[in-house]
Amino acid sequence: MKKPKNNLSYFFYPNTIAVIGATANPKKFGNAVTMNLLQQENLESKIFLITHGSKTIFGKKTYKSILDIKETIDIAIILVPAKYVNSVIDECVEKQVKGIIIVTAGFGEINQEGKKLEKEIAAKCRDAGIRIMGPNCVGIQNVDLSLNASFIQMPPKGKISMISQSGSFGCASFYQMERQNIGISKFVNLGNKIDITFDDILTYLKIDEDTEIISLYMEEIRNGRKFLESLIDVNQIKPVVMLKGGKTEKGREAARSHTGSIATNYTLLKTVSQQSGSILCENISQFITALKSLSFLPLPEGDNIGVLTNSGGSSVLFSDNAESLGLKFVNFSEELKAKFSSHLIQLVKLVNPLDMIAGAGEEQYYHITKAMLQDNNIDVVVGCCVIPPFLEMKSVEHYRGMIRAWDETNRKKPLIPLMFFAEKFENLTKFAIKNDSPIFFTPYEAAYAIKVLQNRSHALNKRKSKK
Amino acid sequence: MKKPKNNLSYFFYPNTIAVIGATANPKKFGNAVTMNLLQQENLESKIFLITHGSKTIFGKKTYKSILDIKETIDIAIILVPAKYVNSVIDECVEKQVKGIIIVTAGFGEINQEGKKLEKEIAAKCRDAGIRIMGPNCVGIQNVDLSLNASFIQMPPKGKISMISQSGSFGCASFYQMERQNIGISKFVNLGNKIDITFDDILTYLKIDEDTEIISLYMEEIRNGRKFLESLIDVNQIKPVVMLKGGKTEKGREAARSHTGSIATNYTLLKTVSQQSGSILCENISQFITALKSLSFLPLPEGDNIGVLTNSGGSSVLFSDNAESLGLKFVNFSEELKAKFSSHLIQLVKLVNPLDMIAGAGEEQYYHITKAMLQDNNIDVVVGCCVIPPFLEMKSVEHYRGMIRAWDETNRKKPLIPLMFFAEKFENLTKFAIKNDSPIFFTPYEAAYAIKVLQNRSHALNKRKSKK
Repeated sequence: MKKPKNNLSYFFYPNTIAVIGATANPKKFGNAVTMNLLQQENLESKIFLITHGSKTIFGKKTYKSILDIKETIDIAIILVPAKYVNSVIDECVEKQVKGIIIVTAGFGEINQEGKKLEKEIAAKCRDAGIRIMGPNCVGIQNVDLSLNASFIQMPPKGKISMISQSGSFGCASFYQMERQNIGISKFVNLGNKIDITFDDILTYLKIDEDTEIISLYMEEIRNGRKFLESLIDVNQIKPVVMLKGGKTEKGREAARSHTGSIATNYTLLKTVSQQSGSILCENISQFITALKSLSFLPLPEGDNIGVLTNSGGSSVLFSDNAESLGLKFVNFSEELKAKFSSHLIQLVKLVNPLDMIAGAGEEQYYHITKAMLQDNNIDVVVGCCVIPPFLEMKSVEHYRGMIRAWDETNRKKPLIPLMFFAEKFENLTKFAIKNDSPIFFTPYEAAYAIKVLQNRSHALNKRKSKK
Repeated sequence: MKKPKNNLSYFFYPNTIAVIGATANPKKFGNAVTMNLLQQENLESKIFLITHGSKTIFGKKTYKSILDIKETIDIAIILVPAKYVNSVIDECVEKQVKGIIIVTAGFGEINQEGKKLEKEIAAKCRDAGIRIMGPNCVGIQNVDLSLNASFIQMPPKGKISMISQSGSFGCASFYQMERQNIGISKFVNLGNKIDITFDDILTYLKIDEDTEIISLYMEEIRNGRKFLESLIDVNQIKPVVMLKGGKTEKGREAARSHTGSIATNYTLLKTVSQQSGSILCENISQFITALKSLSFLPLPEGDNIGVLTNSGGSSVLFSDNAESLGLKFVNFSEELKAKFSSHLIQLVKLVNPLDMIAGAGEEQYYHITKAMLQDNNIDVVVGCCVIPPFLEMKSVEHYRGMIRAWDETNRKKPLIPLMFFAEKFENLTKFAIKNDSPIFFTPYEAAYAIKVLQNRSHALNKRKSKK
């Protein structure tokens, strides 16, 4: 893991961290941050605890002030109550720390006085050349470095980096990512954004080696022009997946009490998304599906899809969702049909979607998936399956057949296994994890996953053809 | 369990069942049906196995023909290959069975010849006064009677009855119902519908004592007028939740190869749904949410919602979904705010949604939920929660606080616990099952659940005011 050179890299790869307001009291947020930092055995950054309380915490010596520390400090994490923050900032300025994370809440999201204080702090740090994250945030994480400088749990490790205006959004997303076998490289919760904002982190993540996909949860964008420029720039290298909170009047009202922000107009954001080639999701389910799709699957070279199934109902529902999203079903060539027919019973009609009927098992799924993956007219293969509770079939066999075909064709084309409502089959989930392959659980999810890949593919091709 | 008097009741409460085409070969569908019937210890119906193969199956004597049985037969289940079905039907006519279920596929869904054969069989049975389900179906189930006359698994027991044009749709739904702690009373897969169709079963389920909610998956409705009349009639007593496959051109095409049917125009169905006061879902996720909502929650008396949360992000996202679906946020009264403030820290702004901030635990969730449930201006209470990974909080405590408040107010108003992406917390799921209470996992799901209850409530009030 190389440390990228960038003006914000010290936030993610700090040599030294000062925790101001560290505490041994498990009923305080400061304790969560303290323990999350101390309990990561693989973290190489040096931690300094600053408190007016106990002389040691978790067996570690504490300091009364950041000024008592001899070493230079890369980042200071501020956990003290709001009323003490300003004076702590003064000490950080004197200490010449590089960056500050203000976890403490009770600023601009509360009242005008809080907003005034934010401005004061921001100005002070700007003059000193110190960058600030927060206030009112849960902190930052770099899973690659075992760095959890936040009061939420460490996410599963992966290739997605996330910038979120809400800490609990991150927290909830991590729960879901764990279930979907996807994970995080870097996580930042921006909170009230008095200095560092989306475009700063975007610019950093663009060059971060371990970040392959970037995701954003935002309620407000202050500098739309700068944000658009960063987005256009980053999307040329890495896909950006966005979700917006505060799309409606009531949502904006809730956002105001959440981070004191005036939520950005959604129509404007849609335009920004289109212009930049980003993926703007309409809800949290789409957001997770997009991340899953981009985490596991290659981009398709064209738009034609081929569908196989053991269940008429599932392919009818998939077809509805696919057509609604504008996906294109290919007509199977005579050559391909001939290939199919040697593996299927006579009742099967050789049309797309190909309903192999309920008796189809591992061998049919393997051969038909492979034939479709090898066909030059097909760019994306969708394998629908309702796990059959009959004929002594194994709950994992259909999926296993598809993955075998996918592996044998070197995973060059996207394979979308739609295992209809199969969440309850633990052996299936385990098999998918072991084989580093995705599962989609509803017809909509499967169709949307394809749409995301196609959009990303189109965005890149558009860029290529412009050159 | 009383047996309702109705011309179709013998399908669900048969005294005697003949399985024609029973087999001991586990690689045949007929075996699945045979074993599903024989292995239910609590089933009181008498089973007769008819086969030209083994003399006993699973230790049970077999017959060569239904005509060899002395007892009268309520229902005959036909599993023999398509080419033998016609002659088997002749024997059933001679035996004067009351009803026939043709599981065998390979009729009208295949070709014109199949359609012709269907007409012949239908006419023959009509003349003999015998009703037919299928062909090309998985069979029927009555969970209350431990009757599984189908080749799919027995669903979890519950109060929902389902009529499905797709067998695998039922199968997949059951997997999901199990996870959501909801379940089935009666299940029917109609297949090619050469005789018995939606309105017949609807009329039966209307008076079935154990059915509280009716759900339909359909691809085609043949007699729209009759269907509408049945729907209007049934909806006055029980809510009907519908999902349509084949809404798009491609979906209709897939439906044609599935059950040989010409899928019904969706715009027409929307009108039918509105006129009858049914709930028409747009996708399978809505369908499950609607069934969950109606299974667990009472109907609201009015439209005003009150929202509490420990996570700003979740309430922003919930608010967006709620406003998109037209839900109404109430303004809290001064009296209610006074009640709130004694339980909350000063940072909390007393607005709706009420963001109690991340430190709120069981006691806050209990007191605030209860205050909202007791408030005359609030009809529905939404408890948003991101399970906190800090402050030594228990993953079940927020939910437990809400359920305590719900119980103490006798569950009179709908309580919507939105446990954001908390599927991975098994202790939470177990607690919910033990307490017979629902969990909603995404902001959209929570908002849609409320919409369903409100729609049902409006439909019933409209009916009342018309009288």
